[in-house]
Amino acid sequence: MLDEELDAWLRLKLTPGVGDATARKLLAAFGLPPALFAQPHAALSAVAGPALAGRLQTEPEGWRELCDRTQAWLEGDKRRRLLTLGDPDYPPELLQTEDPPLLLHVEGDTAALRHPLRLAIVGSRNPTAQGADHARAFAQALAGAGACIVSGLALGIDAAAHEGALEAGGSTLAIVGTGLDLVYPNKHQTLARRIAAQGALVSEYLLGTPPLAANFPRRNRIISGLSQGVLVVEAALQSGSLITARQAAEQGREVFAIPGSIHSPQARGCHALIRQGAKLVESAQDILEELHASLPTADEGHKPGPTGRDEGSRQQRGDALLLALGHEPCGLDALQARCGLDTATLQARLLELEFDGLVARLPGGQYQRRAAT
Amino acid sequence: MLDEELDAWLRLKLTPGVGDATARKLLAAFGLPPALFAQPHAALSAVAGPALAGRLQTEPEGWRELCDRTQAWLEGDKRRRLLTLGDPDYPPELLQTEDPPLLLHVEGDTAALRHPLRLAIVGSRNPTAQGADHARAFAQALAGAGACIVSGLALGIDAAAHEGALEAGGSTLAIVGTGLDLVYPNKHQTLARRIAAQGALVSEYLLGTPPLAANFPRRNRIISGLSQGVLVVEAALQSGSLITARQAAEQGREVFAIPGSIHSPQARGCHALIRQGAKLVESAQDILEELHASLPTADEGHKPGPTGRDEGSRQQRGDALLLALGHEPCGLDALQARCGLDTATLQARLLELEFDGLVARLPGGQYQRRAAT
Repeated sequence: MLDEELDAWLRLKLTPGVGDATARKLLAAFGLPPALFAQPHAALSAVAGPALAGRLQTEPEGWRELCDRTQAWLEGDKRRRLLTLGDPDYPPELLQTEDPPLLLHVEGDTAALRHPLRLAIVGSRNPTAQGADHARAFAQALAGAGACIVSGLALGIDAAAHEGALEAGGSTLAIVGTGLDLVYPNKHQTLARRIAAQGALVSEYLLGTPPLAANFPRRNRIISGLSQGVLVVEAALQSGSLITARQAAEQGREVFAIPGSIHSPQARGCHALIRQGAKLVESAQDILEELHASLPTADEGHKPGPTGRDEGSRQQRGDALLLALGHEPCGLDALQARCGLDTATLQARLLELEFDGLVARLPGGQYQRRAAT
Repeated sequence: MLDEELDAWLRLKLTPGVGDATARKLLAAFGLPPALFAQPHAALSAVAGPALAGRLQTEPEGWRELCDRTQAWLEGDKRRRLLTLGDPDYPPELLQTEDPPLLLHVEGDTAALRHPLRLAIVGSRNPTAQGADHARAFAQALAGAGACIVSGLALGIDAAAHEGALEAGGSTLAIVGTGLDLVYPNKHQTLARRIAAQGALVSEYLLGTPPLAANFPRRNRIISGLSQGVLVVEAALQSGSLITARQAAEQGREVFAIPGSIHSPQARGCHALIRQGAKLVESAQDILEELHASLPTADEGHKPGPTGRDEGSRQQRGDALLLALGHEPCGLDALQARCGLDTATLQARLLELEFDGLVARLPGGQYQRRAAT
């Protein structure tokens, strides 16, 4: 990007009273920012009103300094980028959301923004020990299956999710709520460096933007907007994670939630989401199945924990009876003659198979094998 | 009921090869059992085939003995009843199910079968300590709110549910899988006496019927059939409780499930039910709200635990801002002028209200209060 164009984008973002929505309206009317700032007052006023037109024609305070600072930041590391709404590398999924950020500062692997499977993992800043373990284990399993883990660099669930992805050797995106020349919280300096090295740090906020309470919930729309699905690990009612989940649902993203004890305040938010239609998940496999992806299965053996479960034995136990049943309706007596089981055992097994959806009970005491689904 | 009619019902139930479905077909064709047994062979054969017609014309083994035993049982306690499909006291909800039992032996308060709010609580015979606590606490709260608790007298969740209802001074129905002259498991003798005194024991099985594995899953259709809703407290995958839940759903009953840790095998069944559409519940209040009933709220104060939660503070916190917002769309600046909050706080509160469904964000940075739902 030419310095002049970059400077004009920064000026637009910095102009008081110009939020993202107004900026997009101006860009739609006049094209790229340099063209916008070349407009006469009357033209600007026609779109944005006289007050805003006046502000757009006044250099905003601190602009020149910001331009120099941003240029120096970009030159300080070749893995830093400033993606604008007009940039061909701007993530298309984010562009299609209702409120795409004007600018994305990126430090690290810009290609991670286009990773084929991006999953957000979010949750409480004050999780239970088990909640943090879940975030780490799900992130490990999902990153191990090839997903890029998106989160917000916050304390608690966010940090555990980033760490799990890093430990699995996978990619991870941290969407932060400050300027990228700052790290918040301060204790995540090392984590931020590791994320920048193995994935990327992303911020819509101008360099030097301190942590402001209002910026963090807004930042969440980028976390969900960049992701195909959002997993909420632990969340209290009225928490930012629920806002992320709601925004995700509005953006058409899948929402997943991990259940927990009805006595845990940190599970309440997840339970509320499940009631509202979020998918209850017990394992990373549940998420991947929902997104039509799949974990690597070769030579993995049987692993306990969040990556999978063993349901094979049930299938095997039913097999002899299913074979005896064949594919036509069959009464109990005939079935008993075929398989030699006593009535009680036979009825119990048929009920199991019926529950598993493998056998249907027909009127008149007949049973029939159901087509595989 | 005349002895003769009772004896004919018992004979019908005892005749080999006559299951409940066949019996209903015969009753539909010939009327009450005495009329049925007065039919000539040809008439019976036309409905049931020659083999079954022959068996219907032969006194089944042990029938006379069963008649005497049943008469003696009925005379032994004036709170014992034998309700047949044709009895005006037979529960109408059960009659409307696909497979209503021919006979219901009842010991205790027959009126409990017509209690206005009947809720089943079922689950594992091997629950966790917390699962048993949940069953007891939910049963206490629901019985305290006037519900009759229906369960199966089994070890574990069933027993805890009956006990919770009894402790609350409420009514409870135990639908058992043996003849009512037996108690299974044997250690529930005292519990069965308490249930008969305060509610009722119910069985479709003939006196003397021992505990047979196949009878227990079938018995579950009566538990759900007699109830407006079924709560599954803890259940492994492939458990009888899931069969009850599935039958309940097929019978048009509400199914409720309590979530738990993703590491607990006893929560897996509940999670599977929730995925299939069961309502996730955290409290007895959740169930009562779903069934449009309500807990007594007067002078109860704030009680923690499964009976309710305190959501009032959120409402109060939003109130000032909601008043400032009025009922017309309003921009941030105007709202800030009205309520005097700084931008960050204002945006954070608006997001909270938005999440609570109390405020809608409109295009162009406007906010509007939503109509109360």
